[in-house]
Parts: sequence; C-alpha cells; structure tokens
Amino acid sequence: MLTRIDHIGIACRNLDETVAFYKATYGFEVFHEEVNEEQGVREAMLKINETSDGGASYLQLLEPTREDSAVGKWLAKNGEGVHHIAFGTADVDGDAEAIRGKGVRVLYDEPRIGSMGSRITFLHPKDCHGVLTELVTSAEPSADHSSAEH
Amino acid sequence: MLTRIDHIGIACRNLDETVAFYKATYGFEVFHEEVNEEQGVREAMLKINETSDGGASYLQLLEPTREDSAVGKWLAKNGEGVHHIAFGTADVDGDAEAIRGKGVRVLYDEPRIGSMGSRITFLHPKDCHGVLTELVTSAEPSADHSSAEH
Repeated sequence: MLTRIDHIGIACRNLDETVAFYKATYGFEVFHEEVNEEQGVREAMLKINETSDGGASYLQLLEPTREDSAVGKWLAKNGEGVHHIAFGTADVDGDAEAIRGKGVRVLYDEPRIGSMGSRITFLHPKDCHGVLTELVTSAEPSADHSSAEH
Repeated sequence: MLTRIDHIGIACRNLDETVAFYKATYGFEVFHEEVNEEQGVREAMLKINETSDGGASYLQLLEPTREDSAVGKWLAKNGEGVHHIAFGTADVDGDAEAIRGKGVRVLYDEPRIGSMGSRITFLHPKDCHGVLTELVTSAEPSADHSSAEH
C-alpha cells in the first residue's frame, strides 16, 4: 500500500546551483547527497517534512552524470523541471506486482537501488496519465531518521 | 516558512478518468472536489498522508474548464503530466513577500483563493529552475482535518 508522497524528483543541469537556489529561496537544507552510477545521476535529497506513516517527504534534485542516462535524455528534451513523483510503500515488490497485474507497465523486472539504500521501481508514464511514477521502500523503517546521524 | 509538500498538481484531460485511474491503481480516494472558475479548473484532491506540521499532502488532479486557462494552455503544449508543485506555509503573504525580495517573480500581487478555501500564489518557473511552484496557506490550521467531516 502506498502511504506517502516520498519525493518529487526534479531534473537540473547543475546540482550545486540548484541546491543553492533551494537553500537561498526557501531555506531547504541538503539531508543527503550521493551519486547513483546505475541511474546515471548525482543527487541531493532535501527533507521537507515527516509523514504520518513514519517516513518523510523530500525534494530529490537530479543532475545527470552522463548524457545518455534517462535523466540526461529527459533534460535534453524537456529542460529543467519535475522529472517524476514517488510514493512510499513498505512493500515495493508486492505493490509493483499488483500494479503490473492491473496492466500498468513496470519498468524493472526487480526493484533496483535508489536514494539512501532504498529499493525502487518505476511505472511507465504513458500508463499513468503522463506522470513517471516511482515506488520506493526505504532501506529500513527508520532509515530516514538514522541516516541523519551519519 | 515552508513546512510541507502540500500537493503535486497534475494536469489531465479528463478528471473522472484520471480519478478512476488513481483509485484503481493505487487505491487513492477523492478527499475533495471543486471547480475554481478563476483558475479555470475542475479539480480533485486525493489525500495521501498527513504531515509533521499538522497539514497533509495531496495529489491535485486538474482538468481545465476552458482552453484559454493557464492549465488548458499548458496541457495543449505539454500533454498530461505534473503541472506544478506546492509547499505549505502558515504565512503565504510573508513568505511570498520575502521570496519576491530575493528576486524571484511572484505571479500574483496578492494571494488568491485555491483548493478548499486556501490562499495561494505562484512563483515563476523560469526563476525556479523550471518548476512552477505554488505557496499555500490552508483556510484554517485544522482545515485539512475538519473538511473531512463535511
């Protein structure tokens, strides 16, 4: 069951400049930063609020590390902007399977590794009224909080 | 101060069909539905989770009521997809003024009426790395919860 808006994924050309914009304009701070080579992105997670399911909602700022990555191609076509939305669930495997059974294309056979050790998959935007939609299960129930202590 | 992701605004061609997709695929229910003549939209709010500031996060599905509305023009150009993101604040007037002072264009001179009697304004996407960004103050501190009892 999807129990929260986990994050909004925003594609940008320059991660440091975009992080600086969000900090200067709204006061949002970087909670976590990493490079995901498989996804071909350098990313920063800005934590906005905690959620009633024990998780949190983030902005995920994404800079492609190579032009032929999914985000790189998207950015070349669309320019900077909202790339995807993500819902949090305790069971990405079960939810992805159930959604696949409803005829919505799930882009990965098995979930892959996302931000902060989460397990993620994506649903095809053409099956979701134009919205690239991610499903996320955090690395552990309290991952959002424990990682703040790193 | 912006304290939550209030909603993700998604433009769609047919509100009823899109509501049905979100219900059938994810189990999300309509929390509130209204027509905003000033904005030129018919909209449905799907409540996803509550937030640590006492508010909630929604998906806001938007169908234009006329082609020359902002959402109508956007849809004609971009097709269905994420139209804007919105941050919740207790003080949309003060935050909009502070952000204007930083050189970001605020689209309204004064906040206007948004979903469920909230007061809203928008920031120019070209000043926000491509993201049309809304600021929202709920009608009353507990508006999200009391309106569930209507």
